[in-house]
Amino acid sequence: MGVNSNRVEYLSCPETTLRIHTELVAMPPLQIHNVCLPPEQTTFQKLKHRLAEIFFPDDPLYRFKNQTWFRKFILALQFFFPVFQWGSEYNVSLLRSDVISGLTIASLAIPQGISYAKLANLPPIVGLYSSFVPPLIYAILGSSRHLGVGPVSIASLVMGSMLSEEISPNEDPITYLQLAFTATFFAGVFQASLGLLRLGFIIDFLSKATLVGFMAGAAVIVSLQQLKALLGIVHFTSKMGIVPVISSVLKQTDEWSWQTIVMGSGFLLFLLTTRHISIRKPKLFWVSAAAPLTSVVLSTLLVFLLKSKTQEIPIIGRLPKGLNPPSLNMLCFSGPHLAVAIKTGIITGILSLTEGIAVGRTFAALKNYQVDGNKEMMAIGLMNMAGSCSSCYVTTGSFSRSAVNYNAGAQTAVSNIVMASAVLVTLLFLMPLFYYTPTVILAAIIITAVIGLIDYQAAYKLWKVDKLDFVACLCSFLGVLFISVPTGLAIAVGVSVFKILLHVTRPNTMVLGNIRGTQIYQNLIRYRDASRVPSFLILAVESPIYFANSTYLQERILRWVREEEDWIKANNGSTLKCLILDMTAVTAIDTSGIDTICEIRKMLEKRSLQLVLANPVGSVTEKLDHSGILQSFKLNGLYLSVGEAVVHISSLWKAQP
Amino acid sequence: MGVNSNRVEYLSCPETTLRIHTELVAMPPLQIHNVCLPPEQTTFQKLKHRLAEIFFPDDPLYRFKNQTWFRKFILALQFFFPVFQWGSEYNVSLLRSDVISGLTIASLAIPQGISYAKLANLPPIVGLYSSFVPPLIYAILGSSRHLGVGPVSIASLVMGSMLSEEISPNEDPITYLQLAFTATFFAGVFQASLGLLRLGFIIDFLSKATLVGFMAGAAVIVSLQQLKALLGIVHFTSKMGIVPVISSVLKQTDEWSWQTIVMGSGFLLFLLTTRHISIRKPKLFWVSAAAPLTSVVLSTLLVFLLKSKTQEIPIIGRLPKGLNPPSLNMLCFSGPHLAVAIKTGIITGILSLTEGIAVGRTFAALKNYQVDGNKEMMAIGLMNMAGSCSSCYVTTGSFSRSAVNYNAGAQTAVSNIVMASAVLVTLLFLMPLFYYTPTVILAAIIITAVIGLIDYQAAYKLWKVDKLDFVACLCSFLGVLFISVPTGLAIAVGVSVFKILLHVTRPNTMVLGNIRGTQIYQNLIRYRDASRVPSFLILAVESPIYFANSTYLQERILRWVREEEDWIKANNGSTLKCLILDMTAVTAIDTSGIDTICEIRKMLEKRSLQLVLANPVGSVTEKLDHSGILQSFKLNGLYLSVGEAVVHISSLWKAQP
Repeated sequence: MGVNSNRVEYLSCPETTLRIHTELVAMPPLQIHNVCLPPEQTTFQKLKHRLAEIFFPDDPLYRFKNQTWFRKFILALQFFFPVFQWGSEYNVSLLRSDVISGLTIASLAIPQGISYAKLANLPPIVGLYSSFVPPLIYAILGSSRHLGVGPVSIASLVMGSMLSEEISPNEDPITYLQLAFTATFFAGVFQASLGLLRLGFIIDFLSKATLVGFMAGAAVIVSLQQLKALLGIVHFTSKMGIVPVISSVLKQTDEWSWQTIVMGSGFLLFLLTTRHISIRKPKLFWVSAAAPLTSVVLSTLLVFLLKSKTQEIPIIGRLPKGLNPPSLNMLCFSGPHLAVAIKTGIITGILSLTEGIAVGRTFAALKNYQVDGNKEMMAIGLMNMAGSCSSCYVTTGSFSRSAVNYNAGAQTAVSNIVMASAVLVTLLFLMPLFYYTPTVILAAIIITAVIGLIDYQAAYKLWKVDKLDFVACLCSFLGVLFISVPTGLAIAVGVSVFKILLHVTRPNTMVLGNIRGTQIYQNLIRYRDASRVPSFLILAVESPIYFANSTYLQERILRWVREEEDWIKANNGSTLKCLILDMTAVTAIDTSGIDTICEIRKMLEKRSLQLVLANPVGSVTEKLDHSGILQSFKLNGLYLSVGEAVVHISSLWKAQP
Repeated sequence: MGVNSNRVEYLSCPETTLRIHTELVAMPPLQIHNVCLPPEQTTFQKLKHRLAEIFFPDDPLYRFKNQTWFRKFILALQFFFPVFQWGSEYNVSLLRSDVISGLTIASLAIPQGISYAKLANLPPIVGLYSSFVPPLIYAILGSSRHLGVGPVSIASLVMGSMLSEEISPNEDPITYLQLAFTATFFAGVFQASLGLLRLGFIIDFLSKATLVGFMAGAAVIVSLQQLKALLGIVHFTSKMGIVPVISSVLKQTDEWSWQTIVMGSGFLLFLLTTRHISIRKPKLFWVSAAAPLTSVVLSTLLVFLLKSKTQEIPIIGRLPKGLNPPSLNMLCFSGPHLAVAIKTGIITGILSLTEGIAVGRTFAALKNYQVDGNKEMMAIGLMNMAGSCSSCYVTTGSFSRSAVNYNAGAQTAVSNIVMASAVLVTLLFLMPLFYYTPTVILAAIIITAVIGLIDYQAAYKLWKVDKLDFVACLCSFLGVLFISVPTGLAIAVGVSVFKILLHVTRPNTMVLGNIRGTQIYQNLIRYRDASRVPSFLILAVESPIYFANSTYLQERILRWVREEEDWIKANNGSTLKCLILDMTAVTAIDTSGIDTICEIRKMLEKRSLQLVLANPVGSVTEKLDHSGILQSFKLNGLYLSVGEAVVHISSLWKAQP
């Protein structure tokens, strides 16, 4: 700190500082420092470092350093089964919280499970099965303490839409079910291998902007699909797009049933009101959490009591009683539908991972603990693999369920076990009670759940902050709405990647000027107190120099030189003698980039201009060295900072005018 | 310059500098500068600027500024028809050079034209047609003075392989020819529209590394294909891959004809020797330029004279005499093959553009003039569109022909006109002379031409300088060799794009230290004289902060903090109080990135650490401002440089300990 010790006293008095400073700069100069190469590394060392950064950025083994063998074993056990981490400290008070929250989410999970299974065109009971086995597995393997596990709307929707394009769920329900379990299996395998291979960063490519648009689009699609049940239409289009659905609704007006419409809109209003109350007053979270079950109970009672007069209202009907039947024999790894199963598995796998991990991270951040993305992927993957063998379809951490879980005071994953037990009781004893439940209620529950996915405030923020992010959001929204769910997703990822490429293809270049009295060089346009240094043109390139931009940069830099010379001619300035490229932000270079640097130097030499590189970063310096052109720059062409370059080159000019 | 005037005298004496400098730093401090927002711009202005950078980086209209209307008209004429630029200064001495070089390339173009047409499975005469019309059009529209225009090996190969997958050229030659002309038309349309829409940067995505591998792979494939003619095999595989070709060669040993083999290898040796001579002594370029025609003449004579004994050697046979017949009626814009025609057109269009523009730029750089990429695209595109209506297939600037043209002293595009005239004479009068030309000679000419495409030195340089570029090169080489030409190309582009994404997904972060006695902060590992600043952790992030890396950066930065705290604990250092993020190289940020910054700040606050941003670039500052978090940073969280941040924050700590 000695370096800065005496300086600071002047800070409180800017005028003095300025004056003293101006005197200072008229005093002895900087020492000129050499640009160093990074420490020599073999290709193998570099590769190792690179791979470590790609696959183990979080250094997951740091816990194990300097520990005894026994301790290492315990840590490994805790690492793979987080239950051992909190299990030993578990007590009655924690249990009480977990039981309360577990029962609360169960009351939400049962109607949601049935509804989401309908969304995936699966028998309602599969939704309940999926709320039983997966939560138990997650409780042992998962590292989030607040995640409420079960089927989710987006994955259900996507699975339903992708599979029904291949097989009709009404005409061939068995094959459809097989396909769904197989897809779930592949989703699990894909998720677990992403985690195992530490490729979790793949889900990062679904940016938040993309997801905002995608979820809103999916919510609209899902809500429109519910018009079938809400209006009581029997012959409905099997397509998902907005156009066929709306035309189908308008064509079948003769099938609209007023009893269904009245009941549906009544309960929809009730559910939306409770949702609104809970959003306004987060303490009343239980209002919206209990509303779906209340609606189911009330509507079932209503239909049961008015049996004779409500025959037009479709009901769920008989549901099988009993635990999840094994479904290993229903997985098929051959046949004509395998490709669709794999594709559906991968897409629903990615989508459910994205939701599960985002939700886990959100609540972990609130309670200040860490969720390991790759480990979560393995947990979710294993849970789906096990699920596919026990009649469950794709599950993950659900946002609505986790929020209720968190608000109800869940402390550990035991709340998931409590929920699973409640589902168990339902499966064993309460199934006949759902006989008279009208399907219109499930539609109302789904609409209420997905309406929260339309986050127009987030979209507005995207528009305000980053127009291109907004375009990505809009593309995925419109893509989902008018083309199809997977296409919309693909378009959105494409737009996001295109945005990165665009930034690289057309990087920003700017002219720097010296901020008077400092060694700081900054953008002339942005900083009014920055001024041109006569005879120098100082350019900063704000991107790696790659094949994708090397031609552009060459043209652009020569244009800057041309414009500078025109400006000098017009203003009678001193002749341009030197171009300094500030390479601070050129964080990488490839062989095309190196050729470009050579080319620029050649072209400048023909105009009797010197090319100087300031502050090239480690990897760039290294590559310039390997390609052999660093040597030629080392002689007055390479400086540690723009400031030193300007000082030294001016001094050389003075020495040899 | 006043700023630096007195400083430089000390430079010659480093010890003094150092001493004085050390005193200096103990003197009054820096003034603290504000971080400014860039000048306010409306969304429309920003969009306009962005679009101008994307589509008009070279500011093509700058010539027209401040000119009279008449002058503007002349300039526009010269802009669209470069012939008006050099036409007015054309004289006899230039004409002499152009005639000599034109005749030289004609002697190369005639045998090459016939050979390349064979490569594309087209009648040999189409190769000659393609050496007549397109050069004439290019002479008027093209801006390169040295480009020798005609069919090229790569585009011929790709067209041949893609079209014969759809239609057999032997069984249905008419449809095949129609398809070829239609593909040529689409190639022209695609090229011209790329130029017109100023999307020329698309061809930049074929990086040099990709092309090195692609061309080498294509050269191997082409050479292997020539084994058919070289060995005199009659029943040959129609596939392009290395495996089927070699197995076909080995299976048909009974068809090998010794006469063909002797003649083929003899002339191949002759051609390779002349090629070697010309490479060794560039002055003797005419040796290799004249060799193909010499071989054709000699071998034709030989076959003619030994007619009775060489019946086993296949000959070209009758070629129609006369000018290019119109082929507008052969273009078909409907039917089952349209998709293939469009796809082939686009791929051959891109490939031929890449070659034509790279060649044009290479020779323009040698003679110090500029070639406008977008204008060249329009010229090449129009030339191919016109070509497709006059029985020509895809043409572009050929590397071998242009090199000969340049070496033979070509001065303007008139050499192309001379070449076209020579081809005209051939077409009108000399066609019967090719009756006895053995096809084995064409194979030898093709092999000699493509062997130069295998640039192992370039590949070695890629390996030495940039391992990932080498991987891209290898992928395209192996992809072309073992899968197919378009797939190989797609893989290579994929690898190149992946490389960009990888750099963004896993950006480099590094700890900076102060270089003693300066305000420069540099990588601690790279610069031995950089030292840690106690209580500060200074991190530089070397990439934009995007959705693709925001999770990684968050984890990585927290890991840096953890490691720093561990280090401090182990070394009894002073407690970490502040994390400075040097944002100089963070050239862009999106909404996910902004969330990450907030998240990091929150997490650091929980550890009682302050987060400070140093030198955010214009667009990043702007987005931080729009998202509303800049305000909270402005209070001691935002500095113009790391140096100022360290000084000011330390002073605040001193003031309130």
